[in-house]
Amino acid sequence: MKIDLNCDMGESFGSYKLGEDEAVMPFITSANLACGFHASDPTIMQSTIRLAKKYNVAIGAHPSWPDLQGFGRREMNLSAEETKAIVLYQIGALAAFAKAEGAELRHVKPHGALYNQAARDILLAKAIAGAVKAFSPDLILVGLAGSSLIQAGEEVGLHVANEGFPDRNYNEDGTLISRKLANAIIESPGEVAMHALMLARNGIDFSGRHIQVETLCLHGDNAHAAENAKLIRETLGKQGLFVEAL
Amino acid sequence: MKIDLNCDMGESFGSYKLGEDEAVMPFITSANLACGFHASDPTIMQSTIRLAKKYNVAIGAHPSWPDLQGFGRREMNLSAEETKAIVLYQIGALAAFAKAEGAELRHVKPHGALYNQAARDILLAKAIAGAVKAFSPDLILVGLAGSSLIQAGEEVGLHVANEGFPDRNYNEDGTLISRKLANAIIESPGEVAMHALMLARNGIDFSGRHIQVETLCLHGDNAHAAENAKLIRETLGKQGLFVEAL
Amino acid sequence: MKIDLNCDMGESFGSYKLGEDEAVMPFITSANLACGFHASDPTIMQSTIRLAKKYNVAIGAHPSWPDLQGFGRREMNLSAEETKAIVLYQIGALAAFAKAEGAELRHVKPHGALYNQAARDILLAKAIAGAVKAFSPDLILVGLAGSSLIQAGEEVGLHVANEGFPDRNYNEDGTLISRKLANAIIESPGEVAMHALMLARNGIDFSGRHIQVETLCLHGDNAHAAENAKLIRETLGKQGLFVEAL
Amino acid sequence: MKIDLNCDMGESFGSYKLGEDEAVMPFITSANLACGFHASDPTIMQSTIRLAKKYNVAIGAHPSWPDLQGFGRREMNLSAEETKAIVLYQIGALAAFAKAEGAELRHVKPHGALYNQAARDILLAKAIAGAVKAFSPDLILVGLAGSSLIQAGEEVGLHVANEGFPDRNYNEDGTLISRKLANAIIESPGEVAMHALMLARNGIDFSGRHIQVETLCLHGDNAHAAENAKLIRETLGKQGLFVEAL
Repeated sequence: MKIDLNCDMGESFGSYKLGEDEAVMPFITSANLACGFHASDPTIMQSTIRLAKKYNVAIGAHPSWPDLQGFGRREMNLSAEETKAIVLYQIGALAAFAKAEGAELRHVKPHGALYNQAARDILLAKAIAGAVKAFSPDLILVGLAGSSLIQAGEEVGLHVANEGFPDRNYNEDGTLISRKLANAIIESPGEVAMHALMLARNGIDFSGRHIQVETLCLHGDNAHAAENAKLIRETLGKQGLFVEAL
Repeated sequence: MKIDLNCDMGESFGSYKLGEDEAVMPFITSANLACGFHASDPTIMQSTIRLAKKYNVAIGAHPSWPDLQGFGRREMNLSAEETKAIVLYQIGALAAFAKAEGAELRHVKPHGALYNQAARDILLAKAIAGAVKAFSPDLILVGLAGSSLIQAGEEVGLHVANEGFPDRNYNEDGTLISRKLANAIIESPGEVAMHALMLARNGIDFSGRHIQVETLCLHGDNAHAAENAKLIRETLGKQGLFVEAL
Repeated sequence: MKIDLNCDMGESFGSYKLGEDEAVMPFITSANLACGFHASDPTIMQSTIRLAKKYNVAIGAHPSWPDLQGFGRREMNLSAEETKAIVLYQIGALAAFAKAEGAELRHVKPHGALYNQAARDILLAKAIAGAVKAFSPDLILVGLAGSSLIQAGEEVGLHVANEGFPDRNYNEDGTLISRKLANAIIESPGEVAMHALMLARNGIDFSGRHIQVETLCLHGDNAHAAENAKLIRETLGKQGLFVEAL
Repeated sequence: MKIDLNCDMGESFGSYKLGEDEAVMPFITSANLACGFHASDPTIMQSTIRLAKKYNVAIGAHPSWPDLQGFGRREMNLSAEETKAIVLYQIGALAAFAKAEGAELRHVKPHGALYNQAARDILLAKAIAGAVKAFSPDLILVGLAGSSLIQAGEEVGLHVANEGFPDRNYNEDGTLISRKLANAIIESPGEVAMHALMLARNGIDFSGRHIQVETLCLHGDNAHAAENAKLIRETLGKQGLFVEAL
């Protein structure tokens, strides 16, 4: 049994620093790199590619709506054609830095509001999947487990990866409980690690709902990010799971 | 004897239309496509790639300083590392649309102030050449004939193409006469075509100065752009030059 | 009986030209100036303020979602607080150019998707009305006739102006027929002028529905914009309406 | 004898936090607020205005080149007219938030590269001074002590304030030693406070050069910003200087 640990990376911008990339990178197997639309800039994309390569972490694009001020977390409404084009643009931009370092992109995972909207809007999901396929049919599309984005990826013939969130509680229907609600977030590192194990090994969440996952999302933007990543990785390893990239 | 005819293309943006791309494309052999930093956007990049492919025109990236309001014509001062990164980013973004259409980039030509600054600043020129080489050693770097940009391209081992401007008069030192001066621009289509011929066939400008050129720059943003392009192409053809891409 | 004729103005951007501002300005009484978020830039704001002043046209702010590529026509989802802040920012920016020319802002009319969303979303409408009131209680808020935006303006104690669209057909409920439908637009200049008269004088649309209007929206972005504006103004004048600013 | 203590404030952006505004605000008398071009956004401008008002700190605009990625620290080359327009735009945008809170702008201080370029380029300085004057002749223009910006302000009839930098060493000609050189920065808080005292009370720098100052620039973006601000303010107070806004 194997599982991938992914984390959003390269989310600084210009003079602004965000995330504990250097500390977290050693513990993950896949890095989702911002492409300049919600975070990051060309200089940071370059250094983050190098950091991922240094730790032999698989590199993926993390495209977003064009919304730097809102960090890509505000819903937007672009046409399918526009969406496909902005995703393709971002994948290409990141791929250039990978190419320059002798690396290749392994996966694509939409960010923030684009991710959430694509989880429930099949037309939007197809636009994203179409962009990924157009760039390379070998890229893996990462989406919320069991969501429209996974379905769209499968329909166009892409490899897909169902993503689980160890630090989030789930609704009955397999969607995430909204961050606006009190029980959205699991705070305790120990519980998060335990949840990660259940999701990865048993394919169930804390309430016993079936959630199929091939990759788990860690968070890199808080003070304990590295500790938590380390704990999850160790917990999974001790239980016999192979933690490796998609 | 052969010569390439290039033109800046895909310079519209969102709802804003600029240039006569459809009318001019049939007469050129290389198209320099804006990459979203001084003009264009992902949707326009996609449609312009398709248009170039339709007419079998070689596709190149036309990267710029990040200055949409100034159309990339205002000088900026980025570090060599920042410059390399923004050029790589733009090449990659455009390359994604080419890849999606089964095409490949043939060349890179910096735009506006970036082009002009790189013509005289060897460090800046090396940063650009470094980005092009990092993306692909097969790309051709286009720069002002005899300028620092050409020199930088040669130093890193790239194929280079010296560019001439049929509708511009030259200074003694082979640089272009500033647009602020009265005699900068050659207006008459017939004279422009004649100048094109002299540059392409004889390697001399109107005053008999030696200007080596492998590609000539046409302009696509005025009302007579297509006529002028047609006239130049026909004039060169009648005189026995092979008009073909780099 | 009086009526105001308003038109969106100053929608060029950098090197990109849009609209027939110089030709249309003589025929309108209120100009809605873009503030740099969906169109325009500081240089254009300045010149458009001067143009409006030259023709003694009342100046208003035309704030938008931050979406230059989408020309402010794509729906976005900002919080009420964020919306209030971006509207205040844009009003202030434009007001500076008015102040520098010894003029004052008379009204505020949201643009594009912000206008349409505010017509049906009372919370969004209140955020906009709050921003206008915070800048100056003397500003007039312009919104779709009978919509939530008008209601929100009245609730905070602003002067409001119900806007009608002579070149658009209306739904039963007083909203505009979507541009995606065939009968959305009235093409004939004569019919548009007649519709303008019915809206202004009788407060009814072509189908006899009651639509209260204090201002009519003209369009400045097509080839016949000036002619159409002239025709509407003359038609209204001949029928005894006083065409004057709010 | 009196002196003003100013500090750049409101330099966060979207999700990105920068500076210790809450901790430093109590110790300063003037706050220079970013206006969205190099840092800040409408939401942050609003909250920073409120914070300044809470501590009765004078509010000023801190306009910049349009360069969010470069934090306004990269040189740009805009025409005088463009520069005047972008400065006016930014002042107006900030003034709207002040107006909404019943406050008024007291001063304008250009940021970063715009500040440095205006210190030595009188044409650029005049464009800035022209924008400030056009918005309000009561605004105070803050510039590097003895520089072209001060001269330009005086020429258009503005009140000006010569600014000194307690944590920076000066060249013979009264300009600041470049940050690229080893002795540019004074690190020791005690020395900085002593330098502040010499500049404010004696009008001389550490080497005894005459530097006339009406305001001292503190820095708010490091871990000890609040301590240092407190130390400077106390040192000046103990020596009998009145620390108050311009």
